[in-house]
Amino acid sequence: MRKRLIVQKFGGSSVANVERIQNVAKRVAAYKKKGNDLVVVVSALGDTTDELIKLADQINSDPSEREMDMLLSTGEQISVALLAMAVHKLGFEAISFTGAQGGIITDAAHTRARIIKINTDKIKEELKRGRIVIVAGFQGITLNQDITTLGRGGSDLTAVALAKELGADECEIYTDVEGIYTTDPRIEPKASRISAITYDEMLEMASLGAQVMQSRSIEVAKKFNVPIHVRSSFSDKPGTMIIEEVKKMEEVVVNGVTLNKNEVKITICDVPDRTGIAAKIFNQLAANGVSVDMIVQNVSRLRQTDISFTVSKSDSQKALKLTKKVAASIKAGQVIEDHDIARISIIGVGMKSHPGVAASMFETLARNKINIEMISTSEISISCIIKKKFSEKAVKVLHEKFGLAK
Amino acid sequence: MRKRLIVQKFGGSSVANVERIQNVAKRVAAYKKKGNDLVVVVSALGDTTDELIKLADQINSDPSEREMDMLLSTGEQISVALLAMAVHKLGFEAISFTGAQGGIITDAAHTRARIIKINTDKIKEELKRGRIVIVAGFQGITLNQDITTLGRGGSDLTAVALAKELGADECEIYTDVEGIYTTDPRIEPKASRISAITYDEMLEMASLGAQVMQSRSIEVAKKFNVPIHVRSSFSDKPGTMIIEEVKKMEEVVVNGVTLNKNEVKITICDVPDRTGIAAKIFNQLAANGVSVDMIVQNVSRLRQTDISFTVSKSDSQKALKLTKKVAASIKAGQVIEDHDIARISIIGVGMKSHPGVAASMFETLARNKINIEMISTSEISISCIIKKKFSEKAVKVLHEKFGLAK
Repeated sequence: MRKRLIVQKFGGSSVANVERIQNVAKRVAAYKKKGNDLVVVVSALGDTTDELIKLADQINSDPSEREMDMLLSTGEQISVALLAMAVHKLGFEAISFTGAQGGIITDAAHTRARIIKINTDKIKEELKRGRIVIVAGFQGITLNQDITTLGRGGSDLTAVALAKELGADECEIYTDVEGIYTTDPRIEPKASRISAITYDEMLEMASLGAQVMQSRSIEVAKKFNVPIHVRSSFSDKPGTMIIEEVKKMEEVVVNGVTLNKNEVKITICDVPDRTGIAAKIFNQLAANGVSVDMIVQNVSRLRQTDISFTVSKSDSQKALKLTKKVAASIKAGQVIEDHDIARISIIGVGMKSHPGVAASMFETLARNKINIEMISTSEISISCIIKKKFSEKAVKVLHEKFGLAK
Repeated sequence: MRKRLIVQKFGGSSVANVERIQNVAKRVAAYKKKGNDLVVVVSALGDTTDELIKLADQINSDPSEREMDMLLSTGEQISVALLAMAVHKLGFEAISFTGAQGGIITDAAHTRARIIKINTDKIKEELKRGRIVIVAGFQGITLNQDITTLGRGGSDLTAVALAKELGADECEIYTDVEGIYTTDPRIEPKASRISAITYDEMLEMASLGAQVMQSRSIEVAKKFNVPIHVRSSFSDKPGTMIIEEVKKMEEVVVNGVTLNKNEVKITICDVPDRTGIAAKIFNQLAANGVSVDMIVQNVSRLRQTDISFTVSKSDSQKALKLTKKVAASIKAGQVIEDHDIARISIIGVGMKSHPGVAASMFETLARNKINIEMISTSEISISCIIKKKFSEKAVKVLHEKFGLAK
């Protein structure tokens, strides 16, 4: 068998304590024993990052971003050193690297840096010596030698970027769930693990509330066609492959149902129906860093219209204030906010070639007396805004309707 | 007034918690406000290092030294980031550096690395910008980009080496005592702070039990004539200057009395009085990494002699085993160990030119019925081994005799 190179990434919960670090070491050693090459990316131990943030906050509630990166990057440095020691204990050769030593060069946008390039020379050299290379996730260094961090989900990005740069056969993302599910198993116990999913579907899943991997790392994986395997660090079962194209005898139309209860709906009533009005509203929001999710403009009557949109809860106060200002300036009517909403979505590349999926979704909701307040569609997803109280029921009936139950 | 450059070093107890970090920041800011340049070297927060060692020990009781350095160096990295944030909070510009960023290049002897050179370009650049530069103590980096640590007292060494390399006007070592005392104030409440002491005297003080600064950093300070000011991080009082030569109207003969209760005496009885026998014994100990402190060979009788020496408690079991082996091979008699001993020493450059100091010491001990078991002298110190129970009494009577009381 050809020697394979795999990049494995373990999140904070996989290395939360001594016992779990030892388990990761065992897994890594077992893989190495088969004669393959291995690069391991690790996050900070359990709550380390949160504790460091708390400490910083006691000293300066508005800390310099450069110093924050200096502080937080120690979390992963501790993890890689401890994991290397645990691997040594099992009799295997391993070496730990900080982001800097791993050659991960970023721009200087502290706390949300972007990877510019990766100098893999040192990693390749150590792989050639037969060592397991353990790299600190989430961090990098600028050309000026300043330590940076990559922002939320940064360790996934480190793993995917390394897999791409090293030409790895696979990038395994270890997490505390067994893969990507057709819907949230806490809501629908019949939810089943998806064995394979496309990058595009995963992007929809990620942005619509499935919190397994951050969108950014999936985008990079898609761009460079890096096969990802999301799996559990507590079992040996296969998880979910995220790949370019899923080939099946009979194409699955819908791959998953997602729910997002963290949005707020804002409606501007009686908007004068003039060209450029919508642009005026949403430019204002964008300029102030508010990202808008769904937008619906109702049918115009009497040269006036209602415009509704959703924003995340955390942005809602800011959005409301800005919207009221704009509404006054364009002589629109009342601005109403509605917190009692949920977004329910179905996702699947199959729906492109299967007409009638949308109708089937609406009909299912209607038959269950769930009123639809807003609708938005993309190439591979359909989303509806409904009342919060119907959330769980909607998930269950759609999961059933599209044959996702195990 | 000319702009001065000072290197300040704060130990772990000075930055043990948020409040203390804030106090260090205030002190640093106050100094900067006077218009001077400032480089600050910081150790790890309080017990951080011990906690990391404990964590490592749970994973691998014999950890790789490279990985230990990787792990422990995070302690100082956390300190410098937090101190920088605290200084920012006070409205001053500051930037933190790891050892690597501070240009501290070492050899690859992990856990006890030696500084090869310091590239001060980045530090100088930031000083020129008017920033307070905060450098992680205790750590450096090899030319191969491996993180190293400098061993015990490493942060003092970082401070002294930076002071030398930057041509600083002074190197301030902040600690939890107010300076160097004539003897341990816990034993003799009349102990007084020494305002100035020579490098040589300080080296004797350090190696004889005064645990303020490690010998290594004083040796470097002496070599490059870096003036050191040891002072308290909890007060503004001046401490002790450690300098090349102390000029005074009337020279002080004895500057301090030190006590060391951590030694064990080993005696080999009936050693055949042949050339090269002593060398044989002590070569064997040295080859096994045991450092011997005092050595006394008694007057030979009947072509046989007794040889006594002292070693530190931690080395005593190893030393005893080795000595018994050698004793057998050279056909010597019994090997006896004695844990009930203490070493009492008087130190002062003045004694070189004042005959009778030794006699005065012996007489004082005798008058107080303290029996002397071994004697050893250097240019600037005289040490006696006595029974442990006389330790405190010996300190007090000698401190009194040589006029050191305040």
